[in-house]
Amino acid sequence: MPFKISPLAPRKIKKISPIGGINVSSVHCGLKKNNKQDLVLIKLDSPGEIIGLFTNSKTPGEPIIWNKKIHKFGKVSVILINSGNANVFNGKSGKSSLLKIVNEISSKLKVPKKYIYIASTGVIGEPLDEKKIIKQIPFLISNLQNDSNSWLKAAKAIKTTDTFPKTHSEIFSEKRNIVINGIAKGSGMIAPNMATMLAFIFTNLDFKKEECIEKFREIVDKTFNSITVDGDTSTSDMILFFSVNDKHNSIKLKNENRKKFFLHLEKLTSKLAEYIVKDGEGASKFLKIKIQGAKNINDAKKIGKSIANSPLFKTAMSGSDSNWGRIIMAVGKSGAKLDPEKLTLKFGKFIILKKGKKLNLTYINLINEYLKQSEIEIIVDLNIGIYEWSTWTCDFTKEYVSINADYRS
Amino acid sequence: MPFKISPLAPRKIKKISPIGGINVSSVHCGLKKNNKQDLVLIKLDSPGEIIGLFTNSKTPGEPIIWNKKIHKFGKVSVILINSGNANVFNGKSGKSSLLKIVNEISSKLKVPKKYIYIASTGVIGEPLDEKKIIKQIPFLISNLQNDSNSWLKAAKAIKTTDTFPKTHSEIFSEKRNIVINGIAKGSGMIAPNMATMLAFIFTNLDFKKEECIEKFREIVDKTFNSITVDGDTSTSDMILFFSVNDKHNSIKLKNENRKKFFLHLEKLTSKLAEYIVKDGEGASKFLKIKIQGAKNINDAKKIGKSIANSPLFKTAMSGSDSNWGRIIMAVGKSGAKLDPEKLTLKFGKFIILKKGKKLNLTYINLINEYLKQSEIEIIVDLNIGIYEWSTWTCDFTKEYVSINADYRS
Repeated sequence: MPFKISPLAPRKIKKISPIGGINVSSVHCGLKKNNKQDLVLIKLDSPGEIIGLFTNSKTPGEPIIWNKKIHKFGKVSVILINSGNANVFNGKSGKSSLLKIVNEISSKLKVPKKYIYIASTGVIGEPLDEKKIIKQIPFLISNLQNDSNSWLKAAKAIKTTDTFPKTHSEIFSEKRNIVINGIAKGSGMIAPNMATMLAFIFTNLDFKKEECIEKFREIVDKTFNSITVDGDTSTSDMILFFSVNDKHNSIKLKNENRKKFFLHLEKLTSKLAEYIVKDGEGASKFLKIKIQGAKNINDAKKIGKSIANSPLFKTAMSGSDSNWGRIIMAVGKSGAKLDPEKLTLKFGKFIILKKGKKLNLTYINLINEYLKQSEIEIIVDLNIGIYEWSTWTCDFTKEYVSINADYRS
Repeated sequence: MPFKISPLAPRKIKKISPIGGINVSSVHCGLKKNNKQDLVLIKLDSPGEIIGLFTNSKTPGEPIIWNKKIHKFGKVSVILINSGNANVFNGKSGKSSLLKIVNEISSKLKVPKKYIYIASTGVIGEPLDEKKIIKQIPFLISNLQNDSNSWLKAAKAIKTTDTFPKTHSEIFSEKRNIVINGIAKGSGMIAPNMATMLAFIFTNLDFKKEECIEKFREIVDKTFNSITVDGDTSTSDMILFFSVNDKHNSIKLKNENRKKFFLHLEKLTSKLAEYIVKDGEGASKFLKIKIQGAKNINDAKKIGKSIANSPLFKTAMSGSDSNWGRIIMAVGKSGAKLDPEKLTLKFGKFIILKKGKKLNLTYINLINEYLKQSEIEIIVDLNIGIYEWSTWTCDFTKEYVSINADYRS
């Protein structure tokens, strides 16, 4: 039986700190079964700056196509998110459903269509009944609120096979008045290259897109793009990062807080990425794979991904099996430059191979104990360069198969 | 519990047709538990022509390093195969073990070392106790035989997690005197790019390496290199294709039988590749993925591999779930050129999408029945070119996880 709640779930869900000027509401519109909420409206009092990163898939969902089109205008007033249906591969009817929804929101809220973002997650290729969504828009509008609880509800409403809601909040500056919030969903079809999940990150720090986009990409690359659950890449997923922009609530991004801002932004994306892995379908272990001493950054990434996506490695970890040969296999198949005689391999602090030589493992019992833990670190040092990269993943369990063999039924 | 014998195993194991001039023997030397045979000696009466294809892994086993070194001499007299230990990543002791074994065979059988091929399969990074092997060489030599039963024993002795021995024989020509035989093993760490399994193919047709190597590569590419169980690439695997070369037993390869020869060779490699997939760890279904209408052959291969290695697709198939959205996802993430509005998708003869349009599936019950079968064909027609490629794989089951979480224990 699949886990009801991931054994890796955090003990406490972190509360979102409300930011003035941005409100949220959720409802059950009928796309999910069992009366679960499946529709979320996020509304900004005045248009905020937005940076979107979207899936690389060549068969993207309608929301991705729409959002990419309006992204050049650079502003956001509304984000509507539904779970239960991804609106992918529904042909003309899928496009028309999306447009009807956008038109309805635009007319009801008096905001330009180019400031309305849509996100959908769920089954692919099922026609989306937009009437279910449109019917609930008035309710969503009249229930917009700005408190922790409403954000928690939103985080729950965007879940699909997720077992716990993913939220995080960073508060900093001397006055403790700068806030970055994020909610996310993940669970299946999680793999590097953006293309991986839904995440909505917002702040009261009034950044400019041009100043931040490079740094934001870099941060996403190090966090969301460095996790993998099953190596699969979704058609629908995106990260939207946006700021509240009104004179009462927003704070100017200045040089003195820029560095701190990015630091906290990375902390937040890193936390959400960690939660997504920890809620990977069927996950029972959180695996951190650190590649060091590579000739270049690409090789370090390639090896990390090769290990993290190897079913043989992932099943060994689920069985707490110190079969490190499978790591060597994955290093070897990655295609990255290496010298087997220089390779060092560690499970946590336990050295297995030192510059290609296997140590006499007198502490094999300790290693086996270590591998039974729920967080495991694997370190591969190629010792031929200075580059390093971390990739996070979870183990591969029978629960993963259960969840995915019966997803639709 | 893992299956005792794959539900996809053939009802009857095909007998190998003995060829004069080549003999085989097997024994239990102690690398496998439970007194199972784990060591095979193949001996040719006089040196035969040989073509070897070896793993692409950057952390190859000692036998791969050795065989690649002697491959330029182009002849084979002896092949020694052990299961239970892969002799990979054992440092200097691994190299020295291999050399001791080669020296022993060379002196006992009076054959040059450069004609002695070694193959090992099993756990990585466990020191190989070559004494166990060397001790049994006299027994193996004195028991060399040339009958179907001895070859069947050899096919059993090279198994690791395989549940059935893989053998095939093709006999052709007017006189029915040309024979191609093959034995193989597979099961885990099976993925395209050679690097995948052990296969030993031999014939009494006296080919020349230069005449055949191109065609042989092409055939292997279409068969062994187009299967995948888990996307993992082994450090140890190889295909050795060799001919008996003595005046009493071998038949000259002439222009009139060349075409037939390659046809039968492809039939044989195709059959062995099919068996390897059908014995994929935990496999309950044989999945044939045919990509048609691609702009180029590489795109067709990329998409086939992307679908065949997708855990979400493979688990859906294990649950007989017609969730074709996962196929679209895998097509999309492959990176290949495509136009979603031209894409046609079929399960067997059942059309799901026709040029991007989803059909009204009145026959969904028939599709669900079809997906319960043990052999399923998935056809993706991109309708933008003339190239096609077939990739074979198996489903992903809880048994796969069982087998791999407990491999060493």
